Amino acid sequence: MSDSRIEVPEVVVERLPQYLRALLLLEESRIEVISSQELGALLQVTPAQIRKDFSYFGKFGKQGSGYDVNHLVEQLRQILGLHRTWNVAVVGVGRLGRSIISYPGFQSQGFRVVCAFESSDKLIGQMAGGLLVHDFANFKEVSQSENVNIAIVAVPASAAQDVIDQLVEGGIRAILNYAPKPAIVPSNVKIRNVDPVISLQSMTYHLNNVDQNNGTDC
Amino acid sequence: MSDSRIEVPEVVVERLPQYLRALLLLEESRIEVISSQELGALLQVTPAQIRKDFSYFGKFGKQGSGYDVNHLVEQLRQILGLHRTWNVAVVGVGRLGRSIISYPGFQSQGFRVVCAFESSDKLIGQMAGGLLVHDFANFKEVSQSENVNIAIVAVPASAAQDVIDQLVEGGIRAILNYAPKPAIVPSNVKIRNVDPVISLQSMTYHLNNVDQNNGTDC
Repeated sequence: MSDSRIEVPEVVVERLPQYLRALLLLEESRIEVISSQELGALLQVTPAQIRKDFSYFGKFGKQGSGYDVNHLVEQLRQILGLHRTWNVAVVGVGRLGRSIISYPGFQSQGFRVVCAFESSDKLIGQMAGGLLVHDFANFKEVSQSENVNIAIVAVPASAAQDVIDQLVEGGIRAILNYAPKPAIVPSNVKIRNVDPVISLQSMTYHLNNVDQNNGTDC
Repeated sequence: MSDSRIEVPEVVVERLPQYLRALLLLEESRIEVISSQELGALLQVTPAQIRKDFSYFGKFGKQGSGYDVNHLVEQLRQILGLHRTWNVAVVGVGRLGRSIISYPGFQSQGFRVVCAFESSDKLIGQMAGGLLVHDFANFKEVSQSENVNIAIVAVPASAAQDVIDQLVEGGIRAILNYAPKPAIVPSNVKIRNVDPVISLQSMTYHLNNVDQNNGTDC
Protein backbone atom coordinates (compact mmCIF):
# COMPACT_ATOMS: atom_id res chain seq x y z
CA MET A 1 0.00 0.00 0.00
CA SER A 2 1.29 3.46 -0.85
CA ASP A 3 0.98 6.25 1.73
CA SER A 4 -0.63 8.57 -0.81
CA ARG A 5 -3.67 6.28 -1.11
CA ILE A 6 -6.57 7.60 0.99
CA GLU A 7 -8.39 4.92 2.97
CA VAL A 8 -11.99 5.02 1.74
CA PRO A 9 -14.58 3.83 4.29
CA GLU A 10 -16.08 0.47 3.38
CA VAL A 11 -19.64 1.84 3.46
CA VAL A 12 -18.66 4.39 0.81
CA VAL A 13 -17.15 1.68 -1.39
CA GLU A 14 -20.38 -0.32 -1.03
CA ARG A 15 -22.44 2.68 -2.17
CA LEU A 16 -20.42 3.30 -5.35
CA PRO A 17 -21.98 0.42 -7.36
CA GLN A 18 -25.42 1.70 -6.36
CA TYR A 19 -24.58 5.16 -7.69
CA LEU A 20 -23.28 3.55 -10.87
CA ARG A 21 -26.47 1.49 -11.25
CA ALA A 22 -28.67 4.59 -10.95
CA LEU A 23 -26.47 6.54 -13.37
CA LEU A 24 -26.63 3.76 -15.97
CA LEU A 25 -30.44 3.95 -15.82
CA LEU A 26 -30.19 7.71 -16.37
CA GLU A 27 -27.89 7.11 -19.36
CA GLU A 28 -30.48 4.71 -20.80
CA SER A 29 -33.07 7.49 -20.45
CA ARG A 30 -30.64 9.83 -22.27
CA ILE A 31 -30.31 12.15 -19.28
CA GLU A 32 -26.94 13.92 -19.60
CA VAL A 33 -26.64 16.05 -16.47
CA ILE A 34 -27.92 15.44 -12.94
CA SER A 35 -27.66 17.36 -9.67
CA SER A 36 -26.69 15.72 -6.38
CA GLN A 37 -30.25 16.59 -5.23
CA GLU A 38 -31.78 14.58 -8.08
CA LEU A 39 -29.34 11.69 -7.70
CA GLY A 40 -29.98 11.68 -3.95
CA ALA A 41 -33.75 11.56 -4.47
CA LEU A 42 -33.34 8.58 -6.81
CA LEU A 43 -31.26 6.67 -4.25
CA GLN A 44 -32.81 7.92 -1.00
CA VAL A 45 -29.46 9.39 0.06
CA THR A 46 -28.90 13.04 1.08
CA PRO A 47 -27.17 15.27 -1.52
CA ALA A 48 -24.51 16.09 1.08
CA GLN A 49 -23.77 12.37 1.49
CA ILE A 50 -23.33 11.96 -2.26
CA ARG A 51 -20.97 14.95 -2.48
CA LYS A 52 -18.97 13.65 0.49
CA ASP A 53 -18.74 10.13 -0.96
CA PHE A 54 -17.52 11.47 -4.31
CA SER A 55 -15.02 13.79 -2.60
CA TYR A 56 -12.84 10.77 -1.71
CA PHE A 57 -12.09 10.41 -5.40
CA GLY A 58 -11.64 14.04 -6.46
CA LYS A 59 -14.05 16.44 -8.10
CA PHE A 60 -16.68 14.90 -10.38
CA GLY A 61 -18.70 18.04 -11.07
CA LYS A 62 -18.68 21.81 -10.79
CA GLN A 63 -20.57 23.54 -8.00
CA GLY A 64 -24.01 24.48 -9.31
CA SER A 65 -23.81 22.83 -12.72
CA GLY A 66 -24.51 19.21 -11.77
CA TYR A 67 -22.73 16.05 -12.82
CA ASP A 68 -22.08 14.98 -16.40
CA VAL A 69 -23.72 11.53 -16.33
CA ASN A 70 -21.47 9.90 -18.97
CA HIS A 71 -18.31 11.22 -17.34
CA LEU A 72 -19.41 10.11 -13.88
CA VAL A 73 -20.27 6.61 -15.17
CA GLU A 74 -16.80 6.36 -16.72
CA GLN A 75 -15.10 7.58 -13.52
CA LEU A 76 -17.01 5.12 -11.33
CA ARG A 77 -16.22 2.25 -13.69
CA GLN A 78 -12.52 3.13 -13.46
CA ILE A 79 -12.59 3.42 -9.67
CA LEU A 80 -14.44 0.13 -9.25
CA GLY A 81 -12.19 -1.68 -11.70
CA LEU A 82 -14.99 -2.47 -14.14
CA HIS A 83 -13.01 -1.68 -17.30
CA ARG A 84 -11.80 -5.29 -17.31
CA THR A 85 -13.16 -8.81 -16.94
CA TRP A 86 -12.96 -10.65 -13.62
CA ASN A 87 -12.72 -14.42 -13.53
CA VAL A 88 -14.98 -16.17 -11.06
CA ALA A 89 -14.98 -19.68 -9.58
CA VAL A 90 -18.18 -21.21 -8.20
CA VAL A 91 -17.74 -23.65 -5.30
CA GLY A 92 -20.65 -26.07 -4.88
CA VAL A 93 -22.67 -27.21 -7.89
CA GLY A 94 -25.96 -28.18 -6.28
CA ARG A 95 -29.14 -26.49 -7.51
CA LEU A 96 -28.02 -23.08 -6.22
CA GLY A 97 -24.49 -23.38 -7.63
CA ARG A 98 -25.87 -24.32 -11.03
CA SER A 99 -28.29 -21.40 -11.06
CA ILE A 100 -25.38 -19.09 -10.20
CA ILE A 101 -23.27 -20.51 -13.06
CA SER A 102 -26.10 -19.78 -15.52
CA TYR A 103 -27.10 -16.39 -14.02
CA PRO A 104 -27.21 -14.02 -17.00
CA GLY A 105 -26.42 -10.93 -14.91
CA PHE A 106 -22.77 -11.83 -14.26
CA GLN A 107 -21.32 -12.22 -17.76
CA SER A 108 -23.01 -9.03 -19.02
CA GLN A 109 -21.35 -7.08 -16.19
CA GLY A 110 -17.85 -8.42 -16.77
CA PHE A 111 -17.89 -11.32 -14.30
CA ARG A 112 -17.01 -14.52 -16.14
CA VAL A 113 -17.60 -17.82 -14.34
CA VAL A 114 -14.62 -19.84 -15.57
CA CYS A 115 -14.56 -22.87 -13.29
CA ALA A 116 -16.64 -24.89 -10.84
CA PHE A 117 -15.66 -27.00 -7.84
CA GLU A 118 -17.24 -29.70 -5.70
CA SER A 119 -16.27 -32.05 -2.90
CA SER A 120 -18.85 -34.70 -3.77
CA ASP A 121 -17.40 -37.63 -5.75
CA LYS A 122 -20.71 -37.98 -7.59
CA LEU A 123 -20.39 -34.51 -9.11
CA ILE A 124 -16.63 -34.20 -9.73
CA GLY A 125 -15.88 -34.77 -13.42
CA GLN A 126 -19.50 -34.04 -14.45
CA MET A 127 -20.58 -30.91 -16.35
CA ALA A 128 -22.51 -28.05 -14.68
CA GLY A 129 -23.77 -25.15 -16.80
CA GLY A 130 -21.23 -25.95 -19.51
CA LEU A 131 -18.29 -26.16 -17.09
CA LEU A 132 -16.33 -29.23 -16.03
CA VAL A 133 -16.69 -29.73 -12.26
CA HIS A 134 -13.27 -29.90 -10.57
CA ASP A 135 -12.37 -31.54 -7.27
CA PHE A 136 -12.30 -28.79 -4.62
CA ALA A 137 -9.14 -30.42 -3.25
CA ASN A 138 -7.39 -29.05 -6.37
CA PHE A 139 -8.78 -25.52 -5.94
CA LYS A 140 -5.44 -23.71 -5.60
CA GLU A 141 -3.81 -25.07 -8.76
CA VAL A 142 -6.93 -24.98 -10.97
CA SER A 143 -7.95 -21.47 -9.88
CA GLN A 144 -4.42 -20.17 -10.44
CA SER A 145 -4.20 -21.66 -13.92
CA GLU A 146 -7.64 -20.15 -14.72
CA ASN A 147 -6.63 -16.73 -13.29
CA VAL A 148 -9.54 -16.72 -10.86
CA ASN A 149 -9.98 -13.44 -8.97
CA ILE A 150 -13.24 -14.04 -7.12
CA ALA A 151 -14.94 -17.10 -5.60
CA ILE A 152 -18.67 -17.60 -5.12
CA VAL A 153 -19.61 -20.00 -2.32
CA ALA A 154 -22.78 -22.08 -2.83
CA VAL A 155 -22.31 -24.85 -0.28
CA PRO A 156 -24.48 -25.77 2.75
CA ALA A 157 -24.11 -23.59 5.84
CA SER A 158 -22.35 -26.38 7.71
CA ALA A 159 -19.52 -26.52 5.14
CA ALA A 160 -19.17 -22.78 4.49
CA GLN A 161 -16.43 -21.78 6.95
CA ASP A 162 -14.18 -24.72 5.98
CA VAL A 163 -14.60 -23.97 2.28
CA ILE A 164 -13.93 -20.27 2.82
CA ASP A 165 -10.79 -21.04 4.85
CA GLN A 166 -9.51 -23.12 1.93
CA LEU A 167 -10.32 -20.36 -0.57
CA VAL A 168 -8.28 -17.90 1.51
CA GLU A 169 -5.48 -20.46 1.74
CA GLY A 170 -5.70 -20.77 -2.05
CA GLY A 171 -5.05 -17.04 -2.48
CA ILE A 172 -8.62 -15.73 -3.02
CA ARG A 173 -9.20 -12.21 -1.69
CA ALA A 174 -12.84 -11.61 -2.74
CA ILE A 175 -15.66 -13.98 -1.80
CA LEU A 176 -19.39 -13.81 -2.43
CA ASN A 177 -21.05 -16.09 0.11
CA TYR A 178 -24.50 -17.55 -0.62
CA ALA A 179 -24.37 -19.95 2.34
CA PRO A 180 -26.92 -18.83 4.95
CA LYS A 181 -24.22 -18.32 7.59
CA PRO A 182 -21.70 -15.50 8.06
CA ALA A 183 -18.02 -16.53 7.85
CA ILE A 184 -14.81 -15.16 9.30
CA VAL A 185 -11.98 -14.06 6.98
CA PRO A 186 -8.65 -12.24 7.48
CA SER A 187 -8.77 -8.44 7.12
CA ASN A 188 -7.07 -8.52 3.69
CA VAL A 189 -9.91 -10.64 2.29
CA LYS A 190 -13.28 -9.09 1.36
CA ILE A 191 -16.46 -11.10 1.79
CA ARG A 192 -20.07 -10.19 0.98
CA ASN A 193 -23.05 -12.27 2.01
CA VAL A 194 -26.04 -12.73 -0.25
CA ASP A 195 -28.70 -12.90 2.41
CA PRO A 196 -32.30 -12.80 1.17
CA VAL A 197 -33.68 -13.24 4.71
CA ILE A 198 -32.31 -9.83 5.75
CA SER A 199 -34.26 -8.29 2.84
CA LEU A 200 -37.44 -10.19 3.74
CA GLN A 201 -37.18 -9.13 7.38
CA SER A 202 -37.03 -5.44 6.49
CA MET A 203 -40.29 -5.86 4.53
CA THR A 204 -42.17 -7.73 7.26
CA TYR A 205 -41.68 -4.61 9.39
CA HIS A 206 -44.06 -2.85 6.99
CA LEU A 207 -46.47 -5.77 6.58
CA ASN A 208 -46.63 -6.12 10.35
CA ASN A 209 -47.44 -2.45 10.91
CA VAL A 210 -50.12 -2.38 8.21
CA ASP A 211 -51.62 -5.56 9.67
CA GLN A 212 -51.76 -3.97 13.11
CA ASN A 213 -53.39 -0.83 11.71
CA ASN A 214 -55.97 -2.68 9.67
CA GLY A 215 -56.62 -5.39 12.20
CA THR A 216 -56.44 -8.05 9.47
CA ASP A 217 -54.02 -10.89 8.88
CA CYS A 218 -53.33 -10.35 5.21
CA MET B 1 -52.31 4.78 9.46
CA SER B 2 -52.69 6.39 12.88
CA ASP B 3 -51.20 9.82 13.56
CA SER B 4 -49.37 8.53 16.62
CA ARG B 5 -47.21 6.24 14.48
CA ILE B 6 -43.77 7.75 13.88
CA GLU B 7 -42.55 7.40 10.30
CA VAL B 8 -39.29 5.46 10.57
CA PRO B 9 -36.80 6.15 7.74
CA GLU B 10 -36.47 3.20 5.37
CA VAL B 11 -32.69 3.00 5.88
CA VAL B 12 -33.30 2.49 9.61
CA VAL B 13 -35.82 -0.28 8.92
CA GLU B 14 -33.27 -1.93 6.63
CA ARG B 15 -30.62 -1.87 9.37
CA LEU B 16 -32.84 -3.52 12.02
CA PRO B 17 -32.47 -7.09 10.63
CA GLN B 18 -28.70 -6.59 10.57
CA TYR B 19 -28.72 -5.61 14.24
CA LEU B 20 -30.87 -8.65 14.96
CA ARG B 21 -28.48 -10.93 13.05
CA ALA B 22 -25.48 -9.67 15.05
CA LEU B 23 -27.36 -9.97 18.34
CA LEU B 24 -28.37 -13.57 17.58
CA LEU B 25 -24.70 -14.43 17.08
CA LEU B 26 -23.95 -12.82 20.45
CA GLU B 27 -26.73 -14.89 22.03
CA GLU B 28 -25.17 -18.04 20.54
CA SER B 29 -21.87 -17.02 22.17
CA ARG B 30 -23.75 -16.57 25.48
CA ILE B 31 -22.97 -12.86 25.66
CA GLU B 32 -25.70 -11.24 27.78
CA VAL B 33 -24.92 -7.52 27.71
CA ILE B 34 -23.38 -5.36 24.99
CA SER B 35 -22.61 -1.64 24.69
CA SER B 36 -23.51 0.42 21.63
CA GLN B 37 -19.74 0.79 21.12
CA GLU B 38 -19.26 -2.98 20.91
CA LEU B 39 -22.35 -3.51 18.75
CA GLY B 40 -21.19 -0.67 16.48
CA ALA B 41 -17.73 -2.22 16.11
CA LEU B 42 -19.33 -5.54 15.13
CA LEU B 43 -21.45 -3.90 12.45
CA GLN B 44 -19.17 -1.05 11.34
CA VAL B 45 -21.77 1.51 12.42
CA THR B 46 -21.14 4.39 14.84
CA PRO B 47 -22.50 3.95 18.40
CA ALA B 48 -24.41 7.22 17.95
CA GLN B 49 -26.11 5.82 14.84
CA ILE B 50 -27.18 2.71 16.75
CA ARG B 51 -28.59 4.76 19.63
CA LYS B 52 -30.43 7.03 17.18
CA ASP B 53 -31.85 4.07 15.22
CA PHE B 54 -33.11 2.42 18.41
CA SER B 55 -34.57 5.72 19.67
CA TYR B 56 -37.38 5.46 17.06
CA PHE B 57 -38.74 2.52 19.00
CA GLY B 58 -38.29 3.69 22.58
CA LYS B 59 -35.58 2.93 25.11
CA PHE B 60 -33.84 -0.44 24.78
CA GLY B 61 -31.12 0.08 27.39
CA LYS B 62 -30.01 2.30 30.25
CA GLN B 63 -27.32 4.92 29.73
CA GLY B 64 -23.99 3.41 30.73
CA SER B 65 -25.13 -0.13 31.41
CA GLY B 66 -25.37 -1.48 27.85
CA TYR B 67 -28.13 -3.48 26.19
CA ASP B 68 -29.55 -6.73 27.51
CA VAL B 69 -28.98 -8.96 24.47
CA ASN B 70 -31.96 -11.30 25.02
CA HIS B 71 -34.34 -8.41 25.62
CA LEU B 72 -33.11 -6.52 22.55
CA VAL B 73 -33.48 -9.64 20.37
CA GLU B 74 -37.06 -10.03 21.58
CA GLN B 75 -37.86 -6.34 20.97
CA LEU B 76 -36.43 -6.41 17.44
CA ARG B 77 -38.33 -9.60 16.62
CA GLN B 78 -41.55 -7.90 17.75
CA ILE B 79 -40.85 -4.72 15.77
CA LEU B 80 -39.97 -6.64 12.62
CA GLY B 81 -42.98 -8.94 12.92
CA LEU B 82 -40.89 -12.09 13.28
CA HIS B 83 -42.99 -13.67 16.04
CA ARG B 84 -45.16 -15.22 13.33
CA THR B 85 -44.83 -17.18 10.10
CA TRP B 86 -45.05 -15.41 6.72
CA ASN B 87 -46.33 -17.26 3.68
CA VAL B 88 -44.32 -16.83 0.51
CA ALA B 89 -45.11 -17.49 -3.16
CA VAL B 90 -42.31 -18.09 -5.66
CA VAL B 91 -42.97 -16.91 -9.24
CA GLY B 92 -40.83 -18.65 -11.84
CA VAL B 93 -39.68 -22.24 -11.32
CA GLY B 94 -36.61 -22.39 -13.52
CA ARG B 95 -33.30 -23.37 -11.93
CA LEU B 96 -33.21 -20.22 -9.79
CA GLY B 97 -36.85 -20.54 -8.68
CA ARG B 98 -36.30 -24.15 -7.67
CA SER B 99 -33.18 -23.31 -5.68
CA ILE B 100 -35.18 -20.58 -3.89
CA ILE B 101 -37.99 -23.02 -3.06
CA SER B 102 -35.45 -25.40 -1.50
CA TYR B 103 -33.34 -22.70 0.20
CA PRO B 104 -33.02 -23.89 3.81
CA GLY B 105 -32.56 -20.36 5.21
CA PHE B 106 -36.19 -19.28 4.67
CA GLN B 107 -38.18 -21.89 6.60
CA SER B 108 -35.86 -21.71 9.62
CA GLN B 109 -36.47 -17.95 9.80
CA GLY B 110 -40.25 -18.14 9.60
CA PHE B 111 -40.67 -17.68 5.83
CA ARG B 112 -42.68 -20.60 4.46
CA VAL B 113 -42.79 -21.06 0.70
CA VAL B 114 -46.37 -22.27 0.24
CA CYS B 115 -46.95 -22.03 -3.52
CA ALA B 116 -45.18 -21.70 -6.86
CA PHE B 117 -46.27 -20.12 -10.15
CA GLU B 118 -45.22 -20.26 -13.79
CA SER B 119 -46.40 -18.97 -17.16
CA SER B 120 -44.80 -21.79 -19.15
CA ASP B 121 -47.29 -24.52 -20.15
CA LYS B 122 -44.52 -27.11 -19.86
CA LEU B 123 -44.07 -26.41 -16.14
CA ILE B 124 -47.64 -25.69 -14.99
CA GLY B 125 -49.04 -28.73 -13.20
CA GLN B 126 -45.57 -30.20 -12.56
CA MET B 127 -43.94 -30.38 -9.10
CA ALA B 128 -41.07 -28.08 -8.05
CA GLY B 129 -39.35 -28.61 -4.71
CA GLY B 130 -42.38 -30.50 -3.39
CA LEU B 131 -44.88 -27.84 -4.53
CA LEU B 132 -47.46 -28.04 -7.31
CA VAL B 133 -46.70 -25.39 -9.93
CA HIS B 134 -49.75 -23.17 -10.55
CA ASP B 135 -50.57 -21.14 -13.63
CA PHE B 136 -49.48 -17.54 -12.93
CA ALA B 137 -52.74 -16.39 -14.56
CA ASN B 138 -54.46 -17.69 -11.40
CA PHE B 139 -52.09 -15.88 -9.03
CA LYS B 140 -54.70 -13.75 -7.27
CA GLU B 141 -57.09 -16.53 -6.29
CA VAL B 142 -54.44 -19.13 -5.41
CA SER B 143 -52.31 -16.69 -3.38
CA GLN B 144 -55.37 -15.49 -1.47
CA SER B 145 -56.50 -19.00 -0.64
CA GLU B 146 -52.95 -19.81 0.52
CA ASN B 147 -52.73 -16.58 2.60
CA VAL B 148 -49.61 -15.45 0.77
CA ASN B 149 -48.00 -12.31 2.23
CA ILE B 150 -44.80 -12.06 0.21
CA ALA B 151 -43.83 -12.92 -3.39
CA ILE B 152 -40.37 -13.86 -4.62
CA VAL B 153 -39.74 -13.12 -8.31
CA ALA B 154 -37.40 -15.51 -10.15
CA VAL B 155 -38.25 -14.78 -13.78
CA PRO B 156 -36.00 -13.43 -16.57
CA ALA B 157 -35.27 -9.69 -16.55
CA SER B 158 -37.45 -9.16 -19.62
CA ALA B 159 -40.56 -10.50 -17.82
CA ALA B 160 -39.94 -8.97 -14.38
CA GLN B 161 -41.89 -5.70 -14.61
CA ASP B 162 -44.99 -7.41 -16.07
CA VAL B 163 -44.92 -10.10 -13.40
CA ILE B 164 -44.45 -7.53 -10.64
CA ASP B 165 -47.35 -5.42 -11.97
CA GLN B 166 -49.57 -8.50 -11.76
CA LEU B 167 -48.39 -9.29 -8.22
CA VAL B 168 -49.32 -5.76 -7.13
CA GLU B 169 -52.67 -6.14 -8.91
CA GLY B 170 -53.09 -9.41 -7.00
CA GLY B 171 -52.72 -7.61 -3.66
CA ILE B 172 -49.07 -8.35 -2.83
CA ARG B 173 -47.32 -5.61 -0.86
CA ALA B 174 -43.85 -7.14 -0.31
CA ILE B 175 -41.72 -8.42 -3.18
CA LEU B 176 -38.22 -9.90 -3.25
CA ASN B 177 -36.92 -9.52 -6.80
CA TYR B 178 -34.17 -11.85 -8.06
CA ALA B 179 -34.51 -10.69 -11.67
CA PRO B 180 -31.39 -8.72 -12.64
CA LYS B 181 -33.42 -5.57 -13.34
CA PRO B 182 -34.96 -2.99 -10.98
CA ALA B 183 -38.76 -2.67 -11.13
CA ILE B 184 -41.20 0.11 -10.38
CA VAL B 185 -43.93 -0.39 -7.75
CA PRO B 186 -46.49 1.90 -6.08
CA SER B 187 -45.37 3.58 -2.84
CA ASN B 188 -47.50 1.27 -0.67
CA VAL B 189 -45.61 -1.78 -2.00
CA LYS B 190 -42.13 -2.66 -0.73
CA ILE B 191 -39.62 -4.27 -3.06
CA ARG B 192 -36.06 -5.45 -2.41
CA ASN B 193 -33.66 -6.56 -5.12
CA VAL B 194 -31.29 -9.46 -4.62
CA ASP B 195 -28.42 -8.17 -6.71
CA PRO B 196 -25.16 -10.13 -6.45
CA VAL B 197 -23.45 -7.92 -9.04
CA ILE B 198 -23.63 -4.91 -6.71
CA SER B 199 -21.79 -6.98 -4.09
CA LEU B 200 -19.17 -8.15 -6.60
CA GLN B 201 -18.58 -4.60 -7.81
CA SER B 202 -17.81 -3.34 -4.31
CA MET B 203 -15.14 -6.05 -4.00
CA THR B 204 -13.47 -5.37 -7.36
CA TYR B 205 -12.71 -1.89 -6.00
CA HIS B 206 -10.33 -3.55 -3.57
CA LEU B 207 -8.93 -6.10 -6.04
CA ASN B 208 -8.32 -3.31 -8.52
CA ASN B 209 -6.43 -1.19 -6.00
CA VAL B 210 -4.28 -4.08 -4.76
CA ASP B 211 -3.52 -5.01 -8.38
CA GLN B 212 -2.42 -1.46 -9.13
CA ASN B 213 -0.20 -1.36 -6.05
CA ASN B 214 1.42 -4.73 -6.67
CA GLY B 215 1.63 -4.39 -10.41
CA THR B 216 0.29 -7.92 -10.84
CA ASP B 217 -2.91 -9.22 -12.39
CA CYS B 218 -3.99 -11.57 -9.64
